[in-house]
Amino acid sequence: MTLIVLNFKTYRESTGVEALQLAKICESISEEYSVEMVVVPQAADIHAVSEAVKIPVYAQHVDGVGYGGFTGHVTAASLKANGARGSLINHSERRLKLAEVEASISSCRSFGLKTIVCTNNVVTTRAAAALEPDYVAVEPPELIGSGIPVSKANPDVIRESVNAVLKIAPKVGVLCGAGITHGEDLRAALELGSEGVLLASGIIKAKDQRKALEDLVTGAKK
Amino acid sequence: MTLIVLNFKTYRESTGVEALQLAKICESISEEYSVEMVVVPQAADIHAVSEAVKIPVYAQHVDGVGYGGFTGHVTAASLKANGARGSLINHSERRLKLAEVEASISSCRSFGLKTIVCTNNVVTTRAAAALEPDYVAVEPPELIGSGIPVSKANPDVIRESVNAVLKIAPKVGVLCGAGITHGEDLRAALELGSEGVLLASGIIKAKDQRKALEDLVTGAKK
Amino acid sequence: MTLIVLNFKTYRESTGVEALQLAKICESISEEYSVEMVVVPQAADIHAVSEAVKIPVYAQHVDGVGYGGFTGHVTAASLKANGARGSLINHSERRLKLAEVEASISSCRSFGLKTIVCTNNVVTTRAAAALEPDYVAVEPPELIGSGIPVSKANPDVIRESVNAVLKIAPKVGVLCGAGITHGEDLRAALELGSEGVLLASGIIKAKDQRKALEDLVTGAKK
Amino acid sequence: MTLIVLNFKTYRESTGVEALQLAKICESISEEYSVEMVVVPQAADIHAVSEAVKIPVYAQHVDGVGYGGFTGHVTAASLKANGARGSLINHSERRLKLAEVEASISSCRSFGLKTIVCTNNVVTTRAAAALEPDYVAVEPPELIGSGIPVSKANPDVIRESVNAVLKIAPKVGVLCGAGITHGEDLRAALELGSEGVLLASGIIKAKDQRKALEDLVTGAKK
Repeated sequence: MTLIVLNFKTYRESTGVEALQLAKICESISEEYSVEMVVVPQAADIHAVSEAVKIPVYAQHVDGVGYGGFTGHVTAASLKANGARGSLINHSERRLKLAEVEASISSCRSFGLKTIVCTNNVVTTRAAAALEPDYVAVEPPELIGSGIPVSKANPDVIRESVNAVLKIAPKVGVLCGAGITHGEDLRAALELGSEGVLLASGIIKAKDQRKALEDLVTGAKK
Repeated sequence: MTLIVLNFKTYRESTGVEALQLAKICESISEEYSVEMVVVPQAADIHAVSEAVKIPVYAQHVDGVGYGGFTGHVTAASLKANGARGSLINHSERRLKLAEVEASISSCRSFGLKTIVCTNNVVTTRAAAALEPDYVAVEPPELIGSGIPVSKANPDVIRESVNAVLKIAPKVGVLCGAGITHGEDLRAALELGSEGVLLASGIIKAKDQRKALEDLVTGAKK
Repeated sequence: MTLIVLNFKTYRESTGVEALQLAKICESISEEYSVEMVVVPQAADIHAVSEAVKIPVYAQHVDGVGYGGFTGHVTAASLKANGARGSLINHSERRLKLAEVEASISSCRSFGLKTIVCTNNVVTTRAAAALEPDYVAVEPPELIGSGIPVSKANPDVIRESVNAVLKIAPKVGVLCGAGITHGEDLRAALELGSEGVLLASGIIKAKDQRKALEDLVTGAKK
Repeated sequence: MTLIVLNFKTYRESTGVEALQLAKICESISEEYSVEMVVVPQAADIHAVSEAVKIPVYAQHVDGVGYGGFTGHVTAASLKANGARGSLINHSERRLKLAEVEASISSCRSFGLKTIVCTNNVVTTRAAAALEPDYVAVEPPELIGSGIPVSKANPDVIRESVNAVLKIAPKVGVLCGAGITHGEDLRAALELGSEGVLLASGIIKAKDQRKALEDLVTGAKK
């Protein structure tokens, strides 16, 4: 089943009350079109969003620290307690040290949270796969927010990422992101071997968020 | 009026459900003894805690970024939307770059959030005061979590911080922290010219959190 | 006496052998036109440059750590031992945490190295001045490498920085940077109250580096 | 041939003039006992050390940035120009982001510099191997500087690292470090499958550095 992950980032259109509204739109699209959707609001919005929808809510970032004196860190414990079911890790806008990526995955695993590690190219995808998260999401940074879909601009990065992960850690799924907006982008991503996509501005900044999501989902099935 | 700020850090005893319970204890102490208390839970706990208590809820950290593509950051917008009324900035366990401290203060100000900038000595207190937050909280790092109160171990750091802030930015309040647990520590801190204290492990890890807070508050009045 | 600080950054035209050549050009300009010039090569180039010229050589960055287990850090001790006489601190391309800026200044001072703390606006200039380095160099980041001189695009940031520093720490000198290339830019910077300028690409990427420096120096005197 | 890498860190006994002396001791040990030694001084010391000895000189850290506006960064270009032949990357005292580790390796490769990526456990060793540096050096952080050799305290971390690297990237060599001081530690490390060791305080802080190195080298051959 195709996985569609919507990263809310810190856009005005996906913060606070608008995070709730957007999450509900995602939930209704998920039900209507039988696609698996994950919403990824800011840490402070997770509690309210988790109470409002039944689809999985992931965090945008988690620190690999446990209980203790870690003021200002985002712990897997606090995410779990507030309804999150997983987290992005090492997003291009919140890169982590190698040892921190490993610690974050390990911490999530101990709290039953799913993990999506973001990477920027085939080589770092190999490294991330070796850490055995649930998913690796490869996103060439130069295409993020560009509107130019990675599946068109650089299909090789997806194809080679899929192959590399298959060799190193075959249980790890591959997602792709950067510039994905339309149904054809999603379809191309799936044909290249990925199991889903990581989206953001293409949907969130759309004039009509629901329509943008419908176009994405229905277009993919053509 | 004395300000008592309780930093929940990421202790097990102050995460999730236990963050709510501790916040309610703080609220009842605040009412019973007429002291001003601020609770500082993790970002993901802010929403639930803010709904549960009427005393101010602050964040442990805020990034100085606005709306946009800042995945994994904690924005003043999201804090405000979930009920926070302020934030710690630059805590010793979450230090920020100088330009980030300034941006965080500025971002909080534009959302009507109060700011407490943490510092490690008299010189950085001077610098922090020059940024004109609401409060500077000076905490010698070697005393944090030590049980040895700064007001006893190093009273000069408080006295000189108060004087330095008075010269550079007289509207900025001075708090002190590190090792504060008992009423006499708080009283000493006030006598040295601070307007309140920043607490954590001394209360949170106490066998009886309520009793520890009562001892603190009543001891200060003797 | 006007201070002209040339930051070599990591340009091809100012690395290795070319760092030596450029430093010698600066030295001869300094002698010929009686201006005070400081060259700022990369850490690994400091030794050879210091042996080749008599004008002061500064580092681009220094960590506020002492002797010990700090692999990969740049210590004031190692800079001093290899001939450096000072260092930039907190350049916009190498920002430091507030406590680190303070530690770097303190470490330089104990080894007799001069310090220039870079800042991005008037408020952070105030904070940096409170740390009492030898100089604060204010550089609006949006103008760095732009070719648009700060002295023309935003004269107020210089004027207000000079005033702010005068109030907080009158012994601290003010430099300005970002977009400075021509003599008139330098003259404007001095007229606004700064004691000198921090330069980089405008000189280093010039077709004829010597001529670019001569234009700068002679233009300023008109 | 066994590889012995001596990390000078920022100890007083291995900075400036003392870096030169220690490097010369290493060179003479290398010749006398026919072992391959690499010395790893601070960035500012690389030039003088490279001129003084013929054994390979590595840097302690390199940034994965190229020519351009990267003030305060350590570039492979500047290391090469000053005589370095390789670099440590991601040492536990200078951890890098995953994408930065990849960029540093890539940058070193383009300048013909060898790379040793440091890791903290078997899982991060797998990830580092996937990036295909010349060597991975596994060092459990809790043993660094402890005097307790990893080869005795935790032989499994070496054994499993060797196996993991063999599967993922068989051309990558495995070094081990943390607490290695005596010949028997080195011998144990080699018997567990590593190709050499990464040393520091055990040698540098020894009363007689030459004797400590001789003990290490001769002890390993017993």
